Amino acid sequence: MTETITNVLQQQLDKRYGPDAPVAGDAANPTLEVLLRHRTARNYLPATVSETELQLIIAAAQSASTSANFQFTSVVVIDDPEVRTRLSELAGGQRLVLDASVFLVWIADWSRNIELARANGHTIEATSYLDSALSSIIDVTLSAQNAAIAAESLGYGITFVGALRNNIDAVIDLLHLPEWTFPVYGMAIGLPDPTDPADIKPRYGQNVVVHRNTYTPPTEAAVTDYLTRINTYYREQELPEDWVKNRLAGRISTKESLHGRQHIRTTFHNQGFDLK
Amino acid sequence: MTETITNVLQQQLDKRYGPDAPVAGDAANPTLEVLLRHRTARNYLPATVSETELQLIIAAAQSASTSANFQFTSVVVIDDPEVRTRLSELAGGQRLVLDASVFLVWIADWSRNIELARANGHTIEATSYLDSALSSIIDVTLSAQNAAIAAESLGYGITFVGALRNNIDAVIDLLHLPEWTFPVYGMAIGLPDPTDPADIKPRYGQNVVVHRNTYTPPTEAAVTDYLTRINTYYREQELPEDWVKNRLAGRISTKESLHGRQHIRTTFHNQGFDLK
Repeated sequence: MTETITNVLQQQLDKRYGPDAPVAGDAANPTLEVLLRHRTARNYLPATVSETELQLIIAAAQSASTSANFQFTSVVVIDDPEVRTRLSELAGGQRLVLDASVFLVWIADWSRNIELARANGHTIEATSYLDSALSSIIDVTLSAQNAAIAAESLGYGITFVGALRNNIDAVIDLLHLPEWTFPVYGMAIGLPDPTDPADIKPRYGQNVVVHRNTYTPPTEAAVTDYLTRINTYYREQELPEDWVKNRLAGRISTKESLHGRQHIRTTFHNQGFDLK
Repeated sequence: MTETITNVLQQQLDKRYGPDAPVAGDAANPTLEVLLRHRTARNYLPATVSETELQLIIAAAQSASTSANFQFTSVVVIDDPEVRTRLSELAGGQRLVLDASVFLVWIADWSRNIELARANGHTIEATSYLDSALSSIIDVTLSAQNAAIAAESLGYGITFVGALRNNIDAVIDLLHLPEWTFPVYGMAIGLPDPTDPADIKPRYGQNVVVHRNTYTPPTEAAVTDYLTRINTYYREQELPEDWVKNRLAGRISTKESLHGRQHIRTTFHNQGFDLK
């Protein structure tokens, strides 16, 4: 691979892992560079994703693995400004829902398969079980991540918007989602503002997340090393330090920290999923 | 982009969509070619994924979006032949678990975050809710798909092995998975046997999966067009035709078609997840 790609990939690895980063060397390639490049894009310039680009992004999504070819993915493209405004409100007033060139809502969709099975005289029982709902959510997530990589390969930035689940019933109403469908998250796609300081964010060392044959909890030293690296990142970004106190605790301590998502079980039931 | 990449991408699009395929033109790039290239790889040649390649595959996984930087992904690398043999049995006797160069088990892992929060004196309540389990499964799936794309960019093939959930309690025992972790699926990675006839599989037309602002069920014509294309594919592959009758019905009609996965709710509870 060219020296440039190798160098860029190595810089990305160094930002993710610090001094213990893997060395890419000859294994570097342009796709690895796209995969490692990812950072959150919350501020967009007013550039337009073309229809052809959007079709390729969707084609990439549909090319992901899908359990038994069930193709559980549906995606709603939101280009009506009024729908964008409402979705932005429902997602806690997030400006990026308005500013992105493309805003997608990813749907775990059992309805097509159920319709086909019924039309051909088959009974429907497996869909009442938790695993069936999970399979469809896994499926749409494989697709959505392919879409993210496709968009990033075209020079755009993306952000997942899980906060759509804060007010999921209103999202279902707004998009007229039928029984046996479930909106999992939104995705903003647009041209990132280069003045946005968000950079490649440090992640846990591989010694924390990778296990061999059996699970081994991370050492205290490995966790401390990470907390030092992520807090240094926040300080350099002029963001509040202390990831545990200022971020983790606020999302884990109380059910109210779920901002409405503590009720999604009821929504699954209303949409047809018994989650037995 | 070079004419070669454009031509290869267009051939891939034509295989996915038939005569109504999008036209890539100038938007083609090497990453889109990797994303569209995906096909199931079930037969592997005895080639070895190097340690550097595996580190880059994991680095790609860790570079995916992660909800609030929670980094729910853990991955168990299975290189002990006895553990491989047992996992193959637990996944319904799948040979590819044995033959792949690398076999990974992807874990939705809340344990690190809970440990950190508790060690810093915070209460834990949000994790009792369904949304918290889903967030972690979405997170690990974004990571796993990045790993898949990284492996495919390096010339390998991959297959997700959801059948690990058929006997999930035995998998948890075998890998010593602690409370607040959940094995979601396996992944085989290896050099695909070029004599394997598996090709790029047709998918629904974009007019079936893409909706504008509100959800619209697909037309009968669009569904029929797809069933014709997928059944032609199976015929050409000398596989049983009729996707609805021979595949869909067998996975949807009865709870027994879940092959043990109808019990995963109990496993979630045993692992600490109340799924309220």
